[in-house]
Amino acid sequence: MALSSALLDQAVDQLASLPGIGRRTAMRLALDLLRRDVHEVARFSEAVRNMREQVQYCTQCCNISDRPVCDICSDPNRDASMICIVEDIRDVIAIENTHQFKGLYHVLGGVISPMDGVGPDDLHVAELFMRTAKGGIREVVLALGATLEGDTTSFFLSRKLQEAGIAVSMIARGISIGGDLDQVDEVTLGRSITDRKPYGPNTRT
Amino acid sequence: MALSSALLDQAVDQLASLPGIGRRTAMRLALDLLRRDVHEVARFSEAVRNMREQVQYCTQCCNISDRPVCDICSDPNRDASMICIVEDIRDVIAIENTHQFKGLYHVLGGVISPMDGVGPDDLHVAELFMRTAKGGIREVVLALGATLEGDTTSFFLSRKLQEAGIAVSMIARGISIGGDLDQVDEVTLGRSITDRKPYGPNTRT
Repeated sequence: MALSSALLDQAVDQLASLPGIGRRTAMRLALDLLRRDVHEVARFSEAVRNMREQVQYCTQCCNISDRPVCDICSDPNRDASMICIVEDIRDVIAIENTHQFKGLYHVLGGVISPMDGVGPDDLHVAELFMRTAKGGIREVVLALGATLEGDTTSFFLSRKLQEAGIAVSMIARGISIGGDLDQVDEVTLGRSITDRKPYGPNTRT
Repeated sequence: MALSSALLDQAVDQLASLPGIGRRTAMRLALDLLRRDVHEVARFSEAVRNMREQVQYCTQCCNISDRPVCDICSDPNRDASMICIVEDIRDVIAIENTHQFKGLYHVLGGVISPMDGVGPDDLHVAELFMRTAKGGIREVVLALGATLEGDTTSFFLSRKLQEAGIAVSMIARGISIGGDLDQVDEVTLGRSITDRKPYGPNTRT
């Protein structure tokens, strides 16, 4: 039903345009914002607008960064001969939290998705090939999501990189550490069987 | 962990300040906004800010309205001798959707909640008593949520209104239409038994 206020209606529409936010939730958020101080809501509004208008990306790895070269790319202690390809900044944070990767990243900004009209030109793919063309890259690690789009992107990139003579690897897929076998989906469990590796001291965690 | 961009960090903080939105979800929302056109995000930001800065309330029922007197209060076909007291605009929409109430509303803008520091003075309570003091009100229907705060508010208002000689009623609480008895919580089921009414042609739905 139409709301009694066009202003409220527009704000609810905008909030409901966010992923995973329906109109009921959007209304709850709008009413919460209405109860706040005017200046507080102005800060909210400015923070969102400033982020979009002033955001910058690392000229090397394309990650969101306030500096031309991000902290990771400018760290001399990291292995610049390894590049881990991820979808977005969340994956960089997730991998950094494991403390298991000491190379650099390349943030694609998405994955190839013909259904959504996203092709290689919409992603930071050209920047990746410019990096690898400069030489000095020993290995590229693909760390994209295990979805149809992630797999398509991995396949596309691996072919191009291998043509350029660069070693390409992919992060392991299998059952979670601490996971019960009967809780794992069939595809993952099947994959963990075909991708099995010799049992040895390094296999255990 | 700290993000690589203060701009992103601030936007995520602001989005995470919304009710029910954690930092993970806030990050997802921020990345979605970053992928959008600059002007689209400016419209998002403006809609939220304009709502807060320019919002108006009906001078009679205190509901959010772009006009000094809202559509419901200015409708001559509605029964101005009945006032239904609700917490916010969502409740007005919910009750309007039932087409079972032909009176007017009074929107409190919240409920009394000592834990959150919300007292009668923080709500549109004075406006309610100004309306009832003018006379012509036959019945006030309390339609607040069945929570401790809702009940406290109902009790406070009912005492004040009854002192002023106004009939006060409360919407029925009981098992849902189409609901199974074994799915209903004990308090509601107990209440539906103590609040039973004579069986007759009007009881069935």
